[in-house]
Amino acid sequence: MAHVRLGVCYYPEHWPRERWAQDAAGMAALGLSLVRIGEFAWSRLEPKPGRFDWAWLDDAVETLAAAGLEIIMGTPTACPPHWLVARDPDMLPVGADGQVRGFGSRRHYSFSSLGYREAARDITARMAERYGKHAAVVGWQTDNEFGCHDTTECFSSAALTAFQTWCEARYNTIDALNAAWGNVFWSQEYEAFNAIGLPVAVTETNPAHCMAWRRFSSDQVRDFSADMAATVRKHAPEAWLTHNFMGNFTDFDHFDVGADYDVASWDSYPLGFLDLADLDDAMKARYRRRGHPDWAAFHHDLYRAVGRGRFGVMEQQPGPVNWAPHNAQPAAGMARLWGWEAIAHGAEFVSWFRWRQLHVAQEQFHAGVLHADATLAPAHGDIERLARELAELELGDTRPARVALVFDYEACWVTDIQPQSAGFAALTLALEWYSAARLNGLDVDIVSPDAALNGYGLVLLPCLPMLEHALLDRITASGARWLAGPRAGSRTNEFAIPDGLAPGALRTLVDLRITGVDALRRGVHLGIDGGDDDDYVHHWIEAVESSTEPGLVTRDGRGVTFDGDAGTYVAARCSRPLIARLVAEAAQAAGLETRPMPAGLRTRRRGDHMFAVNYGNTAQRLPEGVRLLLGQSPLPPGEVALWEA
Amino acid sequence: MAHVRLGVCYYPEHWPRERWAQDAAGMAALGLSLVRIGEFAWSRLEPKPGRFDWAWLDDAVETLAAAGLEIIMGTPTACPPHWLVARDPDMLPVGADGQVRGFGSRRHYSFSSLGYREAARDITARMAERYGKHAAVVGWQTDNEFGCHDTTECFSSAALTAFQTWCEARYNTIDALNAAWGNVFWSQEYEAFNAIGLPVAVTETNPAHCMAWRRFSSDQVRDFSADMAATVRKHAPEAWLTHNFMGNFTDFDHFDVGADYDVASWDSYPLGFLDLADLDDAMKARYRRRGHPDWAAFHHDLYRAVGRGRFGVMEQQPGPVNWAPHNAQPAAGMARLWGWEAIAHGAEFVSWFRWRQLHVAQEQFHAGVLHADATLAPAHGDIERLARELAELELGDTRPARVALVFDYEACWVTDIQPQSAGFAALTLALEWYSAARLNGLDVDIVSPDAALNGYGLVLLPCLPMLEHALLDRITASGARWLAGPRAGSRTNEFAIPDGLAPGALRTLVDLRITGVDALRRGVHLGIDGGDDDDYVHHWIEAVESSTEPGLVTRDGRGVTFDGDAGTYVAARCSRPLIARLVAEAAQAAGLETRPMPAGLRTRRRGDHMFAVNYGNTAQRLPEGVRLLLGQSPLPPGEVALWEA
Amino acid sequence: MAHVRLGVCYYPEHWPRERWAQDAAGMAALGLSLVRIGEFAWSRLEPKPGRFDWAWLDDAVETLAAAGLEIIMGTPTACPPHWLVARDPDMLPVGADGQVRGFGSRRHYSFSSLGYREAARDITARMAERYGKHAAVVGWQTDNEFGCHDTTECFSSAALTAFQTWCEARYNTIDALNAAWGNVFWSQEYEAFNAIGLPVAVTETNPAHCMAWRRFSSDQVRDFSADMAATVRKHAPEAWLTHNFMGNFTDFDHFDVGADYDVASWDSYPLGFLDLADLDDAMKARYRRRGHPDWAAFHHDLYRAVGRGRFGVMEQQPGPVNWAPHNAQPAAGMARLWGWEAIAHGAEFVSWFRWRQLHVAQEQFHAGVLHADATLAPAHGDIERLARELAELELGDTRPARVALVFDYEACWVTDIQPQSAGFAALTLALEWYSAARLNGLDVDIVSPDAALNGYGLVLLPCLPMLEHALLDRITASGARWLAGPRAGSRTNEFAIPDGLAPGALRTLVDLRITGVDALRRGVHLGIDGGDDDDYVHHWIEAVESSTEPGLVTRDGRGVTFDGDAGTYVAARCSRPLIARLVAEAAQAAGLETRPMPAGLRTRRRGDHMFAVNYGNTAQRLPEGVRLLLGQSPLPPGEVALWEA
Repeated sequence: MAHVRLGVCYYPEHWPRERWAQDAAGMAALGLSLVRIGEFAWSRLEPKPGRFDWAWLDDAVETLAAAGLEIIMGTPTACPPHWLVARDPDMLPVGADGQVRGFGSRRHYSFSSLGYREAARDITARMAERYGKHAAVVGWQTDNEFGCHDTTECFSSAALTAFQTWCEARYNTIDALNAAWGNVFWSQEYEAFNAIGLPVAVTETNPAHCMAWRRFSSDQVRDFSADMAATVRKHAPEAWLTHNFMGNFTDFDHFDVGADYDVASWDSYPLGFLDLADLDDAMKARYRRRGHPDWAAFHHDLYRAVGRGRFGVMEQQPGPVNWAPHNAQPAAGMARLWGWEAIAHGAEFVSWFRWRQLHVAQEQFHAGVLHADATLAPAHGDIERLARELAELELGDTRPARVALVFDYEACWVTDIQPQSAGFAALTLALEWYSAARLNGLDVDIVSPDAALNGYGLVLLPCLPMLEHALLDRITASGARWLAGPRAGSRTNEFAIPDGLAPGALRTLVDLRITGVDALRRGVHLGIDGGDDDDYVHHWIEAVESSTEPGLVTRDGRGVTFDGDAGTYVAARCSRPLIARLVAEAAQAAGLETRPMPAGLRTRRRGDHMFAVNYGNTAQRLPEGVRLLLGQSPLPPGEVALWEA
Repeated sequence: MAHVRLGVCYYPEHWPRERWAQDAAGMAALGLSLVRIGEFAWSRLEPKPGRFDWAWLDDAVETLAAAGLEIIMGTPTACPPHWLVARDPDMLPVGADGQVRGFGSRRHYSFSSLGYREAARDITARMAERYGKHAAVVGWQTDNEFGCHDTTECFSSAALTAFQTWCEARYNTIDALNAAWGNVFWSQEYEAFNAIGLPVAVTETNPAHCMAWRRFSSDQVRDFSADMAATVRKHAPEAWLTHNFMGNFTDFDHFDVGADYDVASWDSYPLGFLDLADLDDAMKARYRRRGHPDWAAFHHDLYRAVGRGRFGVMEQQPGPVNWAPHNAQPAAGMARLWGWEAIAHGAEFVSWFRWRQLHVAQEQFHAGVLHADATLAPAHGDIERLARELAELELGDTRPARVALVFDYEACWVTDIQPQSAGFAALTLALEWYSAARLNGLDVDIVSPDAALNGYGLVLLPCLPMLEHALLDRITASGARWLAGPRAGSRTNEFAIPDGLAPGALRTLVDLRITGVDALRRGVHLGIDGGDDDDYVHHWIEAVESSTEPGLVTRDGRGVTFDGDAGTYVAARCSRPLIARLVAEAAQAAGLETRPMPAGLRTRRRGDHMFAVNYGNTAQRLPEGVRLLLGQSPLPPGEVALWEA
Repeated sequence: MAHVRLGVCYYPEHWPRERWAQDAAGMAALGLSLVRIGEFAWSRLEPKPGRFDWAWLDDAVETLAAAGLEIIMGTPTACPPHWLVARDPDMLPVGADGQVRGFGSRRHYSFSSLGYREAARDITARMAERYGKHAAVVGWQTDNEFGCHDTTECFSSAALTAFQTWCEARYNTIDALNAAWGNVFWSQEYEAFNAIGLPVAVTETNPAHCMAWRRFSSDQVRDFSADMAATVRKHAPEAWLTHNFMGNFTDFDHFDVGADYDVASWDSYPLGFLDLADLDDAMKARYRRRGHPDWAAFHHDLYRAVGRGRFGVMEQQPGPVNWAPHNAQPAAGMARLWGWEAIAHGAEFVSWFRWRQLHVAQEQFHAGVLHADATLAPAHGDIERLARELAELELGDTRPARVALVFDYEACWVTDIQPQSAGFAALTLALEWYSAARLNGLDVDIVSPDAALNGYGLVLLPCLPMLEHALLDRITASGARWLAGPRAGSRTNEFAIPDGLAPGALRTLVDLRITGVDALRRGVHLGIDGGDDDDYVHHWIEAVESSTEPGLVTRDGRGVTFDGDAGTYVAARCSRPLIARLVAEAAQAAGLETRPMPAGLRTRRRGDHMFAVNYGNTAQRLPEGVRLLLGQSPLPPGEVALWEA
């Protein structure tokens, strides 16, 4: 499917009815063909219990369709109306501190509330019944941003009961659970499943208990999501189904939840997340108005995997947002650049959030394609340019990359639960290794630990504590080389240290025993013997016993890299230049061509086209001899180039 | 009223009765003529429910009066006794986290507790009845430091009910409220007033909801305050009435609360607040023992406005306090300098807190005029010198300044609710612009948004998001020039973006549309084209559309200043040197004479006298040719000079 | 008792029974002779209410004894099983925020729960009855790490009732309590003992109230501890009794609790606590893998005092731990060095925690003597070397030092309650002064404020706010010189400023009145007149009135040291070099020989042997002419030397 659609998010219920046609015409004129609506409108669709008002939405659908737009209909379950909360206050989520989290914003529901689930199924079914076969309603989005505002986990009594049931289903007997969790430690043994508590105690709770809780919480999201998806699908069998996931968000297993959808989509806010990111101040200053060059790209590749090859951007940042501590204004042209980046990674659609900035309520400072007074915002011109350029191109489908990066949501939970060196996070390692590949001009497919790996030349395993033999078998069968990072195979599926120690399953491929970890405080850098000042390890280095001579060694004599069968183990968190060097070496060993990128420049291939985007603050020269279909060389900051690969 | 009184706070209930006469004599000998008593003594006045003991206070009043002192009587409502709390535990305030805030310190009451209000009215009436016509009781203070310790807002069920009633009174119908707040967003619509909740939810609540809550909370303080003031006044018709407000405190509208009093007073702790201030470490180090040169001055000018021309300092820091993270010891002479600063700004009285350091309980580390062992503390000598100097002068009344700075409490709530760039606060802007005027040798009147503006040459509007036409009309009618800072006119009274965007009403005077904001992280400075290194904007710069050429432009090409009819809009937070330069230019354009001040030196005129005070660490030369009535040139650090203007 | 034992902590319940004999043999072969067991095994000893299973522990005891090991039996009360909590949920501790702290880790009991105490007494009695006269069970440990995880204070209603009773016992009448606490301030007077609340209120509560609460909380620990100790002793009259205290822990009075035991022991984790310590980043980097040179030594000397001359290390860090933010891996040989340091200070035993790293539950990242897979961890070799070296030596008993440092737990509570300059802590001062003595090559005895002082040449009083005459009388009687630090004598026993001001009782020895404090922000350094750059005071300097000329004076003219009868008062917190200089001068004045230590090197004498240990990163030359029994000169980093003194 090489036809890329552009779209926008729209809230007819926020604007006078007489404005709708003008807005629809404006969207169409801009080159948009998709519009998402409906996902926060429950209080307007069912203003009183059992009293429904569809007329306005019918009109909105017709008005948009009349302008030639196709609709993604959002089910409104992320915002239950007040009357529902009043009727069933137990549906409210509860924080880890035991406080009820109240009505007055959004996502005020617990995934474990059966009463809420019933009501959500009802409104979803009614909506899907009404619009499921409407010709203009081509896609459906369930709910909105599952888990946003820390709502994946809920500490209500309903959640606890559901967790106890979940534990019983997993372990069958309480003795099995006690054994699996090692509850003999500190006399934590439970006498029955209904004795199990929330993972909140005098001090840290058992990591196996925490892991079960995280898995249960993820499963609760999946069950609710699957229920909603099935409800829609029943009435809308022809439309494609999606959910809009988020960036930097790992609280539930997206591969698992994504399996119930046709297309994955995500909400891309590069500047909001840059401000929140665990990056140093210099890097935040450098990319303040363009975003980190690899952040959006990483998520495109991740959600393409979640969508089993199909993904889109449901909400693309058009200007400043309202929710980061410091909300920067994007540099000129970024709404276009970010759009092209998504397309380069295979997006089926890019949809901006939102059509028009809202003058009231929580998101007043959130930019739109139009300003609050309906005049054109900077994103409008960017999108217009992108739409025009896009119309002139025939883009092919995304092709498989030669590099796969294995991303595991459970790995994120493991490092959350046991950082051991403050701030250590599997997601950070994944982002850094992904960046390292991109810095070498390599395209990357992000894949789940269960993915087939045939065709890859190099498989990156940045941080996989629960790495299993099956994955290694697939790597070996594929003939790919591998590069594995710290903590690989360091825990069993039940959160125990494996027999024979870390790297567990990986010990079949490399002769190592990880006997300990040296956790380094921020600012403690261990230089590499014979390396530059930029080549160092930090934050985490493992004590390794091996018959193998280490490749890289720190200046104080500790092994950092260890070669095994067709791959290398990296026993530390590396500086960005160092991991880039290691990825380059691994790629070259795998016979892949690497092309070092200048600061801020990145490339990505789609079909027969090669894209280049410049996130940096200086112009960058493009490869010699290519025939540019778009852009120029040197490529100015914030610009995009395109040529036939 | 040009007679300035000096005073002190005294707690006869803390000391043996046989000590009282000696203390009173000491005060009189020091040159004090006012003494505040009574404001924390409820448990001694009503030791058991309905059992009163006035005898000791009668004696104290007579003893003080016999020494020639006049008394400010404080009503004791800030410290309800334990028996009252035991009888009515619902009077206790509740935090935003739902936790009851208990007995054991002070201010343990909710402004929304009707039971408490009844009890407070009773003790106040009885006290006023007993002493209201006593010749020596010349003034009354209600309660103590309304809102201290975050007690303006209370999240009890009584407060919620009162808030719902308040909303009904303001909006009449729930539909009107839903429309005004934009509750269609996120399905936040309420079906009835009693459905409205506290502004605490899963994530941020509607800013209009927050704003209503802040206004309600402010009104609760005002209602209680008005009730107490009326109760006193009924029995004390001849005495003047005051309340002691605080520094850096904007949780309720002081203009509103102040309207019920004859004189505003405030509690001036320059060093405690310096330690807490949002200033860089270098500035905190420079002024560590003298306080920031403009901090106390700002509050004097603010409370003179709150008191409609009449104000005093009820509590002046005499030495180290006990409540800041680091409690510095004032440099030699500061008790005198701070006293003179207050007088220069028109204070009717300056009263030190407290006469004698207390050897027990919470404030053991809080200095007094006497040490805990009744020996003389450094402040004693300072006050003695000040009293002697003061006795030899005939001071005129404060004259209106030529510069007005409009300060709006609601502006502070707006920036609290929506900082958009972390830490952005209307109060900070007001302090910086005030400082800028003082650095140019300009006296400033701080005024409310409702104030008459006749006679001013320049009106400063540092940060007024809810700026209204009426204020601009008054500026225009006055013939003054204006200088308006970022966020002016950016919100309607109901916390919405105005039609036509910011600067809203100000668009009648300058052709601008503010279409966005670029929020800058700490350390990101945008230099001014053609400016010095010190000339930069930071933290906040707006995207502006205008037919007007900007005046100042950043090095990356963004307009910072825009001239309009008789004034200029400043679209950014400026460095201190830059805003000083802009204020100087505006003043000069208004025909006002500016005199740049050397670091740490400040001047202030009162009547025909000009005061100079040196907060810096080096001596500073005074203007040539003036005849000094006090002080010398160069003026040493911590010293005061005075001459005929 | 000059025979030093080495040992280890072991958990037979964690491992298959068939492994026990092999483990026991391994311990014996390593040179260990002591093994602690049992202290977390309640759920295995009493798996159901009243149903006991001793068989496995019987077997474990026999297996260990058969290998020649002697046993320290730990009573299991730190981990009540779930069935007990389910039966009596009121036993759970409650935090200051009112939240119940649940089951799921350890120490989930309130010292004030009578139901829990009863159950604890029962299991302890049964265990002691069974093993109290077993020949191999030579020692007993009650519970585990009293107070760990902030459990000394509990805010339950049971605790409040107990506190009210405690207050009545201390003060007899509520009037006496009100007077002692100064409750007239802020009308805080209570009408009856049952009106007294927890020390949690709208703002800070009365420091006298806080102090009473801290004393009560300490007494609750002592009462429980005494009850448990008596219960064991009844059935195990021949065994020695201990409790394992912690590092950096002052929440209860250890002298008081220690009085019920024969031997004090503590759990020594030098690297975990370095990461948490209030030290600058450079120092943390320097000692990252060896620990601060004085930290463990300080605690050895402290617990030798708590044990009235007898102490051991119950848990010695063998490798990385799991509970600090960053868990460093010890440098090579540290398990040996730390062991020798303990022995040099007179330890009767050193026991490593734990024999084998556990592959499940909370402490997976906590190293052992064996790795989780039962292979040898680095500590194994270190201990083996230490055991071999130790076997060849005849060590004498620890001799009294010539320097005493008075440490007062109540002082720590005073500075917790009233820091006045953020972060000021009596423990920090004690550590710094202790370090200063060690830097001069001086051995130190840490003593309680009630200790006899005969024989000392110099008594250090780093921070003793509640210093009393009796202590000074003992100093004077001993003929020792004294050096007293800031805040000495600044509060009465009831937390009031003393008559005549600070330094209170000390005014009999030096003519001073402390009239105030100048609290300095971090980074504000006041240089010493005539001193080096390293000689400065910071954080705290007092305003002093004295007829005595100060010794050291700051560059801005403030007196820092004041000589009195046979001693000197230091009115500030000094930089480390400055306090080292002052201690050196005091020691020399006392006729003691000082030997300045190079960075990282420390010495300690035991009997006729002098030990040197090198915590630094470079080799250090040892004194000329000594005959080394162990080690070499220069002494490499991490190494130990020994010679006859």
